[in-house]
Amino acid sequence: MKVGFLGPKATFTDIAVREMFPEEKAVPYLTIPDCFDALIEDEIDMAVVPLENALEGSVNITLDYLVHEVDIPIIGEVTCPIRQHLMVHPMNKDKWKEIGVVYSHSHALAQCHKFLHKELKGTPSEKTTSTAAAAQFVKESPDIIAGAIANELAATEYGLEIVQKDIHDVSYNHTRFIVLSKKKVRLHEEKSTYKGFKTTVMITLPSDRAGALHQVLSAFAWRKLNLSKIESRPMKTGLGNYFFIIDVDMKQDEVLIPGVVAELEALDCQVKILGSYPYFQIGSEKSRVQHL
Amino acid sequence: MKVGFLGPKATFTDIAVREMFPEEKAVPYLTIPDCFDALIEDEIDMAVVPLENALEGSVNITLDYLVHEVDIPIIGEVTCPIRQHLMVHPMNKDKWKEIGVVYSHSHALAQCHKFLHKELKGTPSEKTTSTAAAAQFVKESPDIIAGAIANELAATEYGLEIVQKDIHDVSYNHTRFIVLSKKKVRLHEEKSTYKGFKTTVMITLPSDRAGALHQVLSAFAWRKLNLSKIESRPMKTGLGNYFFIIDVDMKQDEVLIPGVVAELEALDCQVKILGSYPYFQIGSEKSRVQHL
Repeated sequence: MKVGFLGPKATFTDIAVREMFPEEKAVPYLTIPDCFDALIEDEIDMAVVPLENALEGSVNITLDYLVHEVDIPIIGEVTCPIRQHLMVHPMNKDKWKEIGVVYSHSHALAQCHKFLHKELKGTPSEKTTSTAAAAQFVKESPDIIAGAIANELAATEYGLEIVQKDIHDVSYNHTRFIVLSKKKVRLHEEKSTYKGFKTTVMITLPSDRAGALHQVLSAFAWRKLNLSKIESRPMKTGLGNYFFIIDVDMKQDEVLIPGVVAELEALDCQVKILGSYPYFQIGSEKSRVQHL
Repeated sequence: MKVGFLGPKATFTDIAVREMFPEEKAVPYLTIPDCFDALIEDEIDMAVVPLENALEGSVNITLDYLVHEVDIPIIGEVTCPIRQHLMVHPMNKDKWKEIGVVYSHSHALAQCHKFLHKELKGTPSEKTTSTAAAAQFVKESPDIIAGAIANELAATEYGLEIVQKDIHDVSYNHTRFIVLSKKKVRLHEEKSTYKGFKTTVMITLPSDRAGALHQVLSAFAWRKLNLSKIESRPMKTGLGNYFFIIDVDMKQDEVLIPGVVAELEALDCQVKILGSYPYFQIGSEKSRVQHL
């Protein structure tokens, strides 16, 4: 099977893909819409895209596609720690203090602000479209003493030397990636990275019934269904019109979730299940899902 | 008094400033953090920045500053319709069909995608840092037949000719701007644009008590306090840790809102009132606040 992902090779999304689908053919796409389009047109069997970062919040373009553009279920989720390293061309590995310019994605540069300020003060930085693109550029430019900020996979893929490890300012940064597919693909729940099952529900409230959101949450609360996320998004029909995306910390069943859906529809809400899927977590950091 | 705003001159923020503070000295800043910093350092008395757009959602950088960086109350809100026009240098006003390149902010180009596809198919576009910057560039380049997509104020300010009005694809696009100040500034509630009062509350849930969000909403619901917005944001302490920003559709009082705060604190929530302030709406479009 073919797995499309937000590329190029050796992005953090690629790390998620290699963890989940080590045997499948991975196909990089340059943008998130390109991934979705390839999935819609059956160029690929699955797509892996970022959904939420612990520091930056939701990836709006992914949410917008899920809600407005595609009708393809989420079949899995992977959380990946975001660890950034400083790397140089092997020819320059003893000269990293003399780096003349640092290349990386704007988010990665921001995430390593303190390190850059302390260790490479005054060194200019240049933004690239991804951390992997920065690594690729540095590999192709051995004649200038340039550094790239990227992940370990990028150092391996592009043959760079990591000269400073874990230079990101905040240690708890993670990104959640989702897997989408039209097909019923079985993900490997026996893996050690498997953490549980969740169900993602999109709910549109009836127009202007005060207290409707409280009623919605009541339908989950009295059944003791734990929510691990709620997010409001504008409906694109004007300010003050929102829909909600709610993650329920359980697998879709035959009784409780259908009961919630029936009750919410009776309250004039529109309800759509975006997927019920296993979630996985890469890395040994302590995992914690806060229940709302 | 000095009012800092997200500039340059003739941005949509500038339109909001002119509506709210026609008599005050307006000072443009190039970025939202620059506006906040100027306010913190008392270079300006008030700051006006965008908070939320009906199509794009919340402006993350504004929310982040409000929550993590500053302790300055919101004292007012203005909602402004987003109307985009195609404008050219007056020398080229009869040649707009021959435009060789269209300049604008990436959001504005996206908002006029259908128009550009239909009327100027194949014409390349160039992104600028704001719609106003596009207008300024076109004014300074009469020798090339270039178009700018910007608002009416930009056409007036930079002396351009509007050749196609209201070219945005979706008619209901609006942006909410907030006014921040350390001072007790009285806004003009007698104006026809005045629509009412709201109170914005930030709530952090106790860690991992399932159903806490439902309890929070109950504290508002049994008092029949109407909510017009709820937004969850990551806490920057890891995925799955969220705080909530809630808009209550009333002025802060001595009984009901203090009662909510006391109850929520008793439930181990952290509560901070970001402001209680009048809101205003520019433009004649029908105004509607959906209650949640």
